[in-house]
Amino acid sequence: MIENYLKVRRATEKLVEPLEVEDFTVQPIGDVSPPKWHLGHTTWFFETFILKEFKENYKFYNLKFQEIFNSYYKSVGPHWVQENRGNLSRPTVAEIFKFRHYIDETIINFLEINNNPKIEQVLTVGLEHEKQHQELLLMDIKYILGANTIEITYSDSPLLTPLPKIDMEFLPFAGGVIDVGAKDNSFSYDNEKPRHKVFVAPFKLANRPVTNGEYLNFIEDQGYLDPAIWLSDGWAHKVEQGWQAPLYWKKIDHEWYEFTLCGMEKLNPHTPVTHISFYEADAFALWAGKRLPTEFEWECSTIKDHKNWEWTSSSYLPYPGYQREKGPFGEYNGKFMCGQKVLKGGPKNHTRPSYRNFYHPEKRWQFSGLRLADNI
Amino acid sequence: MIENYLKVRRATEKLVEPLEVEDFTVQPIGDVSPPKWHLGHTTWFFETFILKEFKENYKFYNLKFQEIFNSYYKSVGPHWVQENRGNLSRPTVAEIFKFRHYIDETIINFLEINNNPKIEQVLTVGLEHEKQHQELLLMDIKYILGANTIEITYSDSPLLTPLPKIDMEFLPFAGGVIDVGAKDNSFSYDNEKPRHKVFVAPFKLANRPVTNGEYLNFIEDQGYLDPAIWLSDGWAHKVEQGWQAPLYWKKIDHEWYEFTLCGMEKLNPHTPVTHISFYEADAFALWAGKRLPTEFEWECSTIKDHKNWEWTSSSYLPYPGYQREKGPFGEYNGKFMCGQKVLKGGPKNHTRPSYRNFYHPEKRWQFSGLRLADNI
Amino acid sequence: MIENYLKVRRATEKLVEPLEVEDFTVQPIGDVSPPKWHLGHTTWFFETFILKEFKENYKFYNLKFQEIFNSYYKSVGPHWVQENRGNLSRPTVAEIFKFRHYIDETIINFLEINNNPKIEQVLTVGLEHEKQHQELLLMDIKYILGANTIEITYSDSPLLTPLPKIDMEFLPFAGGVIDVGAKDNSFSYDNEKPRHKVFVAPFKLANRPVTNGEYLNFIEDQGYLDPAIWLSDGWAHKVEQGWQAPLYWKKIDHEWYEFTLCGMEKLNPHTPVTHISFYEADAFALWAGKRLPTEFEWECSTIKDHKNWEWTSSSYLPYPGYQREKGPFGEYNGKFMCGQKVLKGGPKNHTRPSYRNFYHPEKRWQFSGLRLADNI
Amino acid sequence: MIENYLKVRRATEKLVEPLEVEDFTVQPIGDVSPPKWHLGHTTWFFETFILKEFKENYKFYNLKFQEIFNSYYKSVGPHWVQENRGNLSRPTVAEIFKFRHYIDETIINFLEINNNPKIEQVLTVGLEHEKQHQELLLMDIKYILGANTIEITYSDSPLLTPLPKIDMEFLPFAGGVIDVGAKDNSFSYDNEKPRHKVFVAPFKLANRPVTNGEYLNFIEDQGYLDPAIWLSDGWAHKVEQGWQAPLYWKKIDHEWYEFTLCGMEKLNPHTPVTHISFYEADAFALWAGKRLPTEFEWECSTIKDHKNWEWTSSSYLPYPGYQREKGPFGEYNGKFMCGQKVLKGGPKNHTRPSYRNFYHPEKRWQFSGLRLADNI
Repeated sequence: MIENYLKVRRATEKLVEPLEVEDFTVQPIGDVSPPKWHLGHTTWFFETFILKEFKENYKFYNLKFQEIFNSYYKSVGPHWVQENRGNLSRPTVAEIFKFRHYIDETIINFLEINNNPKIEQVLTVGLEHEKQHQELLLMDIKYILGANTIEITYSDSPLLTPLPKIDMEFLPFAGGVIDVGAKDNSFSYDNEKPRHKVFVAPFKLANRPVTNGEYLNFIEDQGYLDPAIWLSDGWAHKVEQGWQAPLYWKKIDHEWYEFTLCGMEKLNPHTPVTHISFYEADAFALWAGKRLPTEFEWECSTIKDHKNWEWTSSSYLPYPGYQREKGPFGEYNGKFMCGQKVLKGGPKNHTRPSYRNFYHPEKRWQFSGLRLADNI
Repeated sequence: MIENYLKVRRATEKLVEPLEVEDFTVQPIGDVSPPKWHLGHTTWFFETFILKEFKENYKFYNLKFQEIFNSYYKSVGPHWVQENRGNLSRPTVAEIFKFRHYIDETIINFLEINNNPKIEQVLTVGLEHEKQHQELLLMDIKYILGANTIEITYSDSPLLTPLPKIDMEFLPFAGGVIDVGAKDNSFSYDNEKPRHKVFVAPFKLANRPVTNGEYLNFIEDQGYLDPAIWLSDGWAHKVEQGWQAPLYWKKIDHEWYEFTLCGMEKLNPHTPVTHISFYEADAFALWAGKRLPTEFEWECSTIKDHKNWEWTSSSYLPYPGYQREKGPFGEYNGKFMCGQKVLKGGPKNHTRPSYRNFYHPEKRWQFSGLRLADNI
Repeated sequence: MIENYLKVRRATEKLVEPLEVEDFTVQPIGDVSPPKWHLGHTTWFFETFILKEFKENYKFYNLKFQEIFNSYYKSVGPHWVQENRGNLSRPTVAEIFKFRHYIDETIINFLEINNNPKIEQVLTVGLEHEKQHQELLLMDIKYILGANTIEITYSDSPLLTPLPKIDMEFLPFAGGVIDVGAKDNSFSYDNEKPRHKVFVAPFKLANRPVTNGEYLNFIEDQGYLDPAIWLSDGWAHKVEQGWQAPLYWKKIDHEWYEFTLCGMEKLNPHTPVTHISFYEADAFALWAGKRLPTEFEWECSTIKDHKNWEWTSSSYLPYPGYQREKGPFGEYNGKFMCGQKVLKGGPKNHTRPSYRNFYHPEKRWQFSGLRLADNI
Repeated sequence: MIENYLKVRRATEKLVEPLEVEDFTVQPIGDVSPPKWHLGHTTWFFETFILKEFKENYKFYNLKFQEIFNSYYKSVGPHWVQENRGNLSRPTVAEIFKFRHYIDETIINFLEINNNPKIEQVLTVGLEHEKQHQELLLMDIKYILGANTIEITYSDSPLLTPLPKIDMEFLPFAGGVIDVGAKDNSFSYDNEKPRHKVFVAPFKLANRPVTNGEYLNFIEDQGYLDPAIWLSDGWAHKVEQGWQAPLYWKKIDHEWYEFTLCGMEKLNPHTPVTHISFYEADAFALWAGKRLPTEFEWECSTIKDHKNWEWTSSSYLPYPGYQREKGPFGEYNGKFMCGQKVLKGGPKNHTRPSYRNFYHPEKRWQFSGLRLADNI
């Protein structure tokens, strides 16, 4: 338990090693949190839900952090407005690392003496929560570095590598009345439950995600100029934001480039397309004469090779029988179940099939791509 | 056919008889169209999709109307921006009535000579479309009259009457793998098709909608002040808009009143609550320890007594196998299938069970209420 | 007195004769009031400041009008928000005419019996106020008709006629310590007082305003593309609003047209340019190597031939010794003395030299042009 | 010359010594620039206007800095949007210090060999410019620290100290036709020229600025609640922004505190009030039965004891005969001469009487107070 705790906590700190203090601090858009805030918030989680809750006479590191690092848990107390996280120069990065170490030490000492299933359960949520923020850190760091006019390189090895050059094929699946959602034998979030039955008609799913090269065909075929293949809200967003390509694409002297964590690179046509909104994914699918899969089609298929998130056509809704938990954990997922779309897959091979990521359909700073589906 | 055409057209004109010219013209919020625009737009529909399409050498009444009365059909040509409809003093109301009569006469003369299944099909869509705008007219007229500080009465007889005083009971339904969507034997929109199978778990549905009196209990129990029962986006809307009650409710000297088409009236506790957003419906249901039904639960139940629209928990999404039609009719429904919620029921007794109305979750100017559901 | 009252009141009604009921009702932008509102507001002025104030047992025509037709007099009571005037379908145009006739009759009956210098003074302000609204009516009507895509003609005779074709010459003026502001022997507003001394250096002023043809040279010389000649705020407005020419100019097939109260007409190069913002006037002057005159230069010069308003370089500020009156008349002018620029001249030959019109520098819907000045 | 250069440059660096790297980086509102940006921009000034202009084969430190540190000089090239300065994590603070040292060394080496009146003149502007940014740095640092919920102290010694407890007295001045503006014998900005004549009527001016205690009387007398004493735009700002006191005042447990560079302190009634908008200053003066002085009254008076900026009633306008310089220096002041008010005085005792500071009337983050004037 403690070993796992330390492993996850160290992994977070490893992720921010390449950053300068200034990189930790800025917030170029409301969606993107300063990296130092992620470091503080994930720590606040353990302080608030374990130490404050279970440790007698717990002495807070700094009571102000209760507000600053509370993301949106109204049941816990007031929280600093998300869009203003980048206005706070203090606490400094160094101070936040001290906070982390203070909490780590206190947690470990506490766990050595106190342990029970309830604490273990919250600890697990805290670690899964921190792993989610590791993804967010990468997204946010990429945005921060990419928002600069000075070229900054975060890493030498790319996050997403080109796919092997194989043709897109559509694999048939039988569907039927199937069980979806999390099984009880390992960790899952409340939004993956209850496991329940859905009816899925027979369908086909592509053997691989759509690539940059295929997406480029869509652009060159005037995909961004034809309202007939766009959702109405999507078209409005496209016009207002001036979208002409995925978020990090840039055309320089008739050549397409893509900003990556390794810096600005020539667009590789075999890499999965990423950083597109749901609206763009949907328009692409319509242009291609196909459609996006539902989250249940995706879940019951045999996809194994995903490396980033893939948009589905499903809205992020509670599963039948879902009950919002009382107290702060009820705020973790349940209150966001409106207006967002489900993404499946994700950057890690071990992501469980029932995991549901979700974003508003216009968001593009996450590593989101698509995979085509079709009817049979 | 012609008889039905005239009946629907006359019904529209009947609806606006109580209005003054000025009432036809204003647009207090972007969602609400000037009534005269509805009169023109429904007429434009027949001109554009029947006369322009099928009548040789058709002479347009006024070519400018092609743009002014086009709502959002990008495949037909440019359209006047929705929010600016109220900026147009011309064409006058009288001129629009002339336009209506010109089109009516031309359509009738045309139908007497030309008829084929294709024309008949478009004519049917045009009439169903006009019936939808009759609903919109009532909503928009109510908003226009209600936005005034001068009291204006539209009608002597109320649209919604109190329910018989019966207790709310939850009727059980078996669910299972059921067929939903429109059958082929009568008119339906493309968004009701294809008829397909869904799995519905056993559920319970209330025998009647929630009343004003029950909703008042929610208000008095501080329902608008407890973030724990609200969706996150709903809470944000509530705060920003200052919602404290349904749209037309007003507290005067400790007494609640409701603006209706008959003017300001004392709140009747037995009338179904209306003019609430999805967010308020959802918060009410959570407060009541219940939930909203899905559109499929509603559809497969035996509800018969609905008189207004009821929010469901379902997002407005394409049915499996749905194909957006090529051309303007593909714009009728398909491009709105994102970000909206499905409502079932409606103000007319004859509405078919597969009919899907849809609005963004924050909208309140439609006659929207709710009915509670529960798990078994 | 009564004769003059009736003359002014009739002149207002004469101005709106060409309008349809719908033209009276709309408000395409916040600055533009519905013509029917002007009819009501100018009447409210007499009701509020004469009848309510001086007539015993005065019976209000409709108490709601006290709020609806109050423009911005916070000392009188609440006022309807300016931007929402176009949301009100009621009172109808016919009702407002009834209101006018009721007030006219009551005022005349009242004046026949009651008269004293105080009442006469307020009546004079009310009539001057109504004359100001006659100007506003023309501006607002022009905007309303021009905002339509359907061509509407208000009048057969143009408001502004071409100037005789004479060269622009700069007339020298000696300046010195001069007296400016209103003399006491006839009506003037508080913002024209006290008459006071200013020092004006010798200057030159053009013998005529800048014409459309001269302004066209500025456009064709890329005047709208060179930030070096624009004020910083002006450039920002230009970019945001997409200004490329005066408000009502339109280029159709390589030919410039101008919307006038007589409809869309070919641009006449000899007509004074109008409907430009202060920013455009200032940029034009800098481009021309000249400058705008100050309000005092204008006032002490011998300009006689003005037909529209001309921007000056002066900010609209209180004169030395100005005291804001207590009560509602203190709100007439004094509270607007920040952020606006003074215009001199005006469409009527009889306008007194001390009259100060004022608008925010970005406004363009008034009949504003410019005249060049220079140093000696 | 070199000595003076180094003195000014060191003074800037001295000012930021108490800051953490994070304090250098954030931009809580558009008006406030990150301190590191000030360090870069003042350096960019010397690079752009001296080295780039006069040094042969000058090698830029980093060409990207030309854009990043250009504030608003459109004639020099593109400039980074002001509101987005806080989005840039790079260049780091350390890198900007390196940039400063590179430029300092290059400038000094260059000046030792090259010198002529033109270069000396630009250098002087550059140093005066940097002194202006020293003021801005203090304002911006104060805002950044004050925007935090964590208490941060910048300094031990206060910027503004209490005045001696003397009664406010009004000193009479004769006015007349006087000369105002900069004399030629020492440095001044173009906006202080040409020196010219104005007529000033006899007036009285207070012997000291308004204090916190006097301003508190205004608050307690409901000064923020009476529209009769506010300018119309000021009232609108007050309502929209929720102003109830000067920017940094805070009421805690019925006691007033003020955030200062020494941290949160009990309000000292004898310290000059600061951080009020022009609108508040103007409303205070009207409440007090007095008025603000014009910039010329202030300039021709004998005020010596000012320690912060004082609002005047004058709009920031070009002096008669002012010519906007060609090229970038014409952008320094001239293009801002619209919509702003003049402030006189300033935090340093040596500020020359002709110096004109200027801000938009709603701004409050500068050290702005007021001094009352009156007519004789």
